[in-house]
Amino acid sequence: MTDDIAAEKALWDKVIMGVDPGTNVMGYGIVGIKNKKPAMIALGIIELSKFESHYMRLKRIYDRILSLVEQYLPDEMAIEAPFFGKNVQSMLKLGRAQGVAMAAALAREVPITEYEPRKIKMAITGTGAASKEQVREMLKRTLNIKEEQLLPQLDSTDALAAAMCHFYESTRPIPSAGKSSWKDFIARNPDRVR
Amino acid sequence: MTDDIAAEKALWDKVIMGVDPGTNVMGYGIVGIKNKKPAMIALGIIELSKFESHYMRLKRIYDRILSLVEQYLPDEMAIEAPFFGKNVQSMLKLGRAQGVAMAAALAREVPITEYEPRKIKMAITGTGAASKEQVREMLKRTLNIKEEQLLPQLDSTDALAAAMCHFYESTRPIPSAGKSSWKDFIARNPDRVR
Repeated sequence: MTDDIAAEKALWDKVIMGVDPGTNVMGYGIVGIKNKKPAMIALGIIELSKFESHYMRLKRIYDRILSLVEQYLPDEMAIEAPFFGKNVQSMLKLGRAQGVAMAAALAREVPITEYEPRKIKMAITGTGAASKEQVREMLKRTLNIKEEQLLPQLDSTDALAAAMCHFYESTRPIPSAGKSSWKDFIARNPDRVR
Repeated sequence: MTDDIAAEKALWDKVIMGVDPGTNVMGYGIVGIKNKKPAMIALGIIELSKFESHYMRLKRIYDRILSLVEQYLPDEMAIEAPFFGKNVQSMLKLGRAQGVAMAAALAREVPITEYEPRKIKMAITGTGAASKEQVREMLKRTLNIKEEQLLPQLDSTDALAAAMCHFYESTRPIPSAGKSSWKDFIARNPDRVR
């Protein structure tokens, strides 16, 4: 089993894990890059609504993200992160969900980059106002995903879109992109890390 | 080293870790219970303002809380958790800080209970409007803490207060207390856990 995963990992120049954190459903999508060409490795959701307790949900997110990180060994993680929400209550809950997902990545030294939903939609479809369905359609074509590989939950393709946005950003960086990753930070500020 | 910790842990009937999460300073306080009497085991802060990157701060919180959990082996964690904040931005950041601290506890199966600041102040001083200095003074007397054991940062005694609030709650539960822990949830809903 371990050999299989190591062999799979060796197929790719880089593996990017995309995460779309939510408090009811968390989506994930994993992209492998080989010779500057991306391909979908995995797509899925973490179902949270069956857990009534907030802590059970957080624990579930932590455990599943950690096991995905250990299975697919991503080099980088891209998170869809809205900066505005309905109210302080929902933002606190979203922040906690993001926090435990980030902790699972940080626990395995995987650098994180976050992207605003609009930015991701822009990177995938060319317009920041695209619908989730349009994002899915474009990913399906770009990555040659078969209909039966897709899930009904759009959170999964949203997460895949975050990974693809990160891929586009790293191959053709847009100066105004803004968000910087932990790895970038360390590269720019070696004296600050200890 | 491991033997020392195991020996220390064996001194207590129960160990409670209190955490006061913040994005600049995170406080912690650890209380040991023996024959229904509490005593302070440790008190400290995690300094975060020196890290400019948000991810470095989150990683620091995760690493330090995890190492404290592994060192002191708390049976339970109590977190001071405000339910209202200035704005959605600060609540998202606070949620993330809480989330990574919670992930470190959940990673070691430590159940979490959260308390509102007012509730903690009430439990320690008898009034929900008490100042942080009053909380510190009361803890100093109740736990026979020497002046030189205290830190200038009130986040540390706030965290200790969360642990003591949890101790009071578990020894003389107030029916209207509200917040329930993960352990309570499992006890009440064994069929929901898997």
